[in-house]
Amino acid sequence: MPGPLSLGEIASALGGRVVGDAGLLVEQVGTLEHGGARHIAFFTNPRYRAQLAATRAGAVILGPQAEALSALPRIVSDNPYAYFARVAQLFNPRSAPVPGVHATAQVDTRARVAASARVDAGAVIGEGAQIGERVWIGAGCHVGEGAAIGADSRLYPAVVLYHGCHIGARAIVHSGAVIGADGFGMAQDEGHWVKVPQIGCVRIGDDVEVGANTTIDRGTVDDTVIEDGVKFDNQVQIGHNCRIGAHTAMAGCVAVAGSTQIGRRCTIGGAARIVGHLSLCDDVHVSATTLITRSIRKPGTYTGVYPFDENASWTRNAVYVKRLADLAERMEALEKRRKPRKGKHG
Amino acid sequence: MPGPLSLGEIASALGGRVVGDAGLLVEQVGTLEHGGARHIAFFTNPRYRAQLAATRAGAVILGPQAEALSALPRIVSDNPYAYFARVAQLFNPRSAPVPGVHATAQVDTRARVAASARVDAGAVIGEGAQIGERVWIGAGCHVGEGAAIGADSRLYPAVVLYHGCHIGARAIVHSGAVIGADGFGMAQDEGHWVKVPQIGCVRIGDDVEVGANTTIDRGTVDDTVIEDGVKFDNQVQIGHNCRIGAHTAMAGCVAVAGSTQIGRRCTIGGAARIVGHLSLCDDVHVSATTLITRSIRKPGTYTGVYPFDENASWTRNAVYVKRLADLAERMEALEKRRKPRKGKHG
Amino acid sequence: MPGPLSLGEIASALGGRVVGDAGLLVEQVGTLEHGGARHIAFFTNPRYRAQLAATRAGAVILGPQAEALSALPRIVSDNPYAYFARVAQLFNPRSAPVPGVHATAQVDTRARVAASARVDAGAVIGEGAQIGERVWIGAGCHVGEGAAIGADSRLYPAVVLYHGCHIGARAIVHSGAVIGADGFGMAQDEGHWVKVPQIGCVRIGDDVEVGANTTIDRGTVDDTVIEDGVKFDNQVQIGHNCRIGAHTAMAGCVAVAGSTQIGRRCTIGGAARIVGHLSLCDDVHVSATTLITRSIRKPGTYTGVYPFDENASWTRNAVYVKRLADLAERMEALEKRRKPRKGKHG
Repeated sequence: MPGPLSLGEIASALGGRVVGDAGLLVEQVGTLEHGGARHIAFFTNPRYRAQLAATRAGAVILGPQAEALSALPRIVSDNPYAYFARVAQLFNPRSAPVPGVHATAQVDTRARVAASARVDAGAVIGEGAQIGERVWIGAGCHVGEGAAIGADSRLYPAVVLYHGCHIGARAIVHSGAVIGADGFGMAQDEGHWVKVPQIGCVRIGDDVEVGANTTIDRGTVDDTVIEDGVKFDNQVQIGHNCRIGAHTAMAGCVAVAGSTQIGRRCTIGGAARIVGHLSLCDDVHVSATTLITRSIRKPGTYTGVYPFDENASWTRNAVYVKRLADLAERMEALEKRRKPRKGKHG
Repeated sequence: MPGPLSLGEIASALGGRVVGDAGLLVEQVGTLEHGGARHIAFFTNPRYRAQLAATRAGAVILGPQAEALSALPRIVSDNPYAYFARVAQLFNPRSAPVPGVHATAQVDTRARVAASARVDAGAVIGEGAQIGERVWIGAGCHVGEGAAIGADSRLYPAVVLYHGCHIGARAIVHSGAVIGADGFGMAQDEGHWVKVPQIGCVRIGDDVEVGANTTIDRGTVDDTVIEDGVKFDNQVQIGHNCRIGAHTAMAGCVAVAGSTQIGRRCTIGGAARIVGHLSLCDDVHVSATTLITRSIRKPGTYTGVYPFDENASWTRNAVYVKRLADLAERMEALEKRRKPRKGKHG
Repeated sequence: MPGPLSLGEIASALGGRVVGDAGLLVEQVGTLEHGGARHIAFFTNPRYRAQLAATRAGAVILGPQAEALSALPRIVSDNPYAYFARVAQLFNPRSAPVPGVHATAQVDTRARVAASARVDAGAVIGEGAQIGERVWIGAGCHVGEGAAIGADSRLYPAVVLYHGCHIGARAIVHSGAVIGADGFGMAQDEGHWVKVPQIGCVRIGDDVEVGANTTIDRGTVDDTVIEDGVKFDNQVQIGHNCRIGAHTAMAGCVAVAGSTQIGRRCTIGGAARIVGHLSLCDDVHVSATTLITRSIRKPGTYTGVYPFDENASWTRNAVYVKRLADLAERMEALEKRRKPRKGKHG
C-alpha cells in the first residue's frame, strides 16, 4: 500500500479543489460512518447528511453544491463518487501477479501462457488456449480449448471459460462465472425438444468486469458479443447471440434473453429482464425488476414495477387489476350517458 | 466435422422438400445475417424478413407459407426450426469422449467408472459412485458418494452432484450446476430456525439438459424428481420435493419453490416463479417473470406482468394501482345513482 | 444412523404429548405420501389432509387442533414442523468429519488448520487463513488469504471464500456459493465506468446457512455483515455493505442491493428484491417477487405482485394499467358533475 498523501498531493494527481488544510495527510479511504482521522470519505447521497455532520473522518470529497455542509478539510469535485473511486485506486492499486504456473495446474502443451502470467493451483488450460501478459488465472479455473484471455486480465478462482471464447484485456472475472456454455437452443418437435448445437462463441472486449456466478452463453451460430467497458454484476444471465453495447452496466440478477441487442451506455437495474429478439438503442435505462417486452428506440428511463404495499392493502386492490377492462368499460358507459347528445342539442 | 452435403442428401436424411438446386453443397449451418455461400440458414421469425431478402447464405430452410419469400435453393419443412436443429446436428455431431481417467482426478476405489468413460483433471468421484458408458466428467467436477450418471452423459467442468443423486442417460449438465444441495427446510421456533435434515435425493431421467449455474435441491425425505426430456436453461432454481414432468422446458432464471408438481410439456418463461406446494397440469405455459400463486388445472398460457412504460408515465399511473379498490367503489356509487330504481319505474 | 426409537423415547427427548401406542418403534422420518410402518411423518398443511387420512406411515406428528384427524399413534406438539425437524435430526445426526488434509489439497504453510479439521481433494487454503476445529472443507473449495472459518462449519465442494472474509461457527455453505467477491462499485465518468476498489470484507456470524450458488459481496470500505442465525436459500445475492439481521431468512433468488440494512427475524420470499440504501426494521415479511423500494419502519407483511391470469384476460386488462391516471381523472370529472353544488343548495 502506498504511504499517506496530503489533500494537496491528491488534488495534484486527480484534479479537484481543496478547501481547508491542503496539508492534511490521509492514508486510506473510509466511510462517513466509520472512517477515522487518517481516512478520506465521500458524500453524494443527501440521505447520509446526518452522517456527514457526525463523521470522524479526517477529510471528505463532495460536490460544489454540498461544499458548505462540512467544515472538514475537503476536496470539491463535480463528480465526487468518481473522484472517490480514483482516490481509492491510488491507495489500493491492483498488484501485478507474481508470474508462474503452479505445480498442480494442468496446462496443455499446445497452450500458450505468457511468461509474465500466473496460473494458480488446480487450474486447467486447454489445447490451443492463449493466456496474455500478466494475466492471473485463479485456482481451479478452467480455460477451454482455443480460448483466449487478453493482457492484464484476472480470473478469480473457479471461473469457467468454454472452448473458443475470447476475453479482452484488463478484464476482471469473478468466481463462479461461466462464459460460453450452450445457449438454450431447443426446437420443439411433437412434444419433444431437439437440441440445436451451439457452435458460436463468446467474444468479450476490453475492460469488462463479470460478477460472481454470472453466465454468458455462446452463440448458436454467430458469436455472443460483449463490447468494451461493459460491467456485469453478480448472477447476470446473457442469452445466446446477444450483443451488449460498450460501457453498458447491468446490476445483479439481470437477465437478457437470446438474440437481443442492447446499445451503448445503457444501465439495467437489478433483476430487470429483457425478452429475446429485441433491440434497445443507446442510453436506455431500465428500472429494477422491469420486464422489457418490445424494442426501445428512444433513450430514456423505462419502468414497469408493481408498487408494493402492506399486504392487506395489496390484497384489497390487486383483485381489481384483473377487472380493469371491466372498470374502463363501465366508465365509458357512464360518460356516454352524461354526454349531451350533439345531434339534439348542437 | 463431416464433409459437405447437398440439399438433396440432407432431404434424404431428414425429410423435407427441396425447392431449387438440390445439388447445391453446404458444409455448415449459418445465419441469415452472416452466413456465406456454403452455409444453410433458417427463417421462421417474420421480424427477420429483411435479413432473408438480403442474405448471402447459400440455402435456407423455411416453412411452406414462407416458401415464396426467397429465390434461393431451399428446403421447405413444416417445422423449419426443428429441421434446422437436425441439420446442425448433422454438421456438428457430439463426439464420443476419449476414454481415460486423468492422473490428477480422484476416483474412490469403491466407485465404478466404465472403461469407456472419461474423467478430466481434478475431478473427484466419491465412494460407491457409478459412472456409465461413454460418460464425460469435466475437469473439477465433484460426484458425491453413491451418486450415479447414466450412459453418454456429459458434465462440463465444475459441476457438483451431491451424494446419492442420480442422472439418467444422455444428460448434458453445464458448468456451475449444483444438483442435490440441501433444500431450504427450516422450521421456525421461537425466533430461531431449526434445520430439517434433507435426506431425500435428486432423481433425473434421461435426455435432460441442465444449464450453467442451475441448482436443483435434494428432497427433504422423498426425492426431487426430474422426468425424461426436461430442459433447464441457466440459473434455474428447483426447490426440494418438486416433480417436473417429462419434456417440460424452463428458460433462464426460473424458480420453482418446494413441493410443487409441474406437468408434462410445460414451458416456463424466463424468470417466471412458481410458489411452493402447487400443482400445474400438463401443457401449461407461463409467461416470462410471471408469479404463479395457485394450482393450474387447465392447459393454456398464463401471464401476470406489469407492462413497462416511460418512467414518467409509469410514475403517473402506478400510484393508482394502490387506489384501485377506492376507484372501483366510487364507480359503483356513481352507477347506483344513475340506475333507475326498479321499484318506482318498473 | 441411530437405532429405532419408541414414540415415548422421542417425547422424553423432545417433549410433546404421545397419543396412542407410546411403545411404537420408528426408525426414520417419512412423508405422509410415501412413509411406511417404521416411519414418522408430520402434518401441518391442511392441503394434505387426504394424505393424512390415507398414510401408511407408522406414526405422525401434528398440532393440537389436528389431533383428532388421525387415529395413528401420534405426537402432539404446538409446533409440529419444528418438532419434526428435531426428530429428523435425532435420526440423521451430522457426522463429525474424519480429520486430515487430502494429499492434493494445497494448504499454504502460513495457514492454520485445526488438527480436527478435514480438507478434501484439490481444496486451496491461502496464506494466513484459519480453519477451526472440526471444520470440513469440501473438494475444490478455495479459502482466500487471511480468511477464517469457525468451528464445526462445513463447506460443501466448490465454495469460494475470498481473502479476508470470516465465517462463524456451525456454518453450512453449499456448493457454488461465492463469498467476498467485489461489490458492484462503479462510478460513472463521462460515459465510462471507474472501478471503486472494494477493500471491505464479509463477516458472517454463527449458525448461518448459505445456499448453493448464493453470492455475498465484500464491502466497499467497511464490511458486509451477516448476523447470527441467518439462513440463505440458493441463488441469493447480497450486495456490498449490507447488514442482514440475526435469524432473518431469505428464500431462493432473493436479491438485496448494496448498503441496505435488514432487521432481525425478517423473512424474504422467493425472488423478492430490495433496492439499495434502505433500512427494514425487525420482523418484516416480504412476499415472493415483491420489489421493496423504500425503507420500512413497521413490522408486517409487504406485497407487490401483479396477479397472474389467463393470458387473454391479462392482455385485455393490462392495457389499462397504463391508463390508470386517465381513468382516475375521468372518475373525478364524473363525480364533480354529480355533486350538488354546495353554494347553491347549502
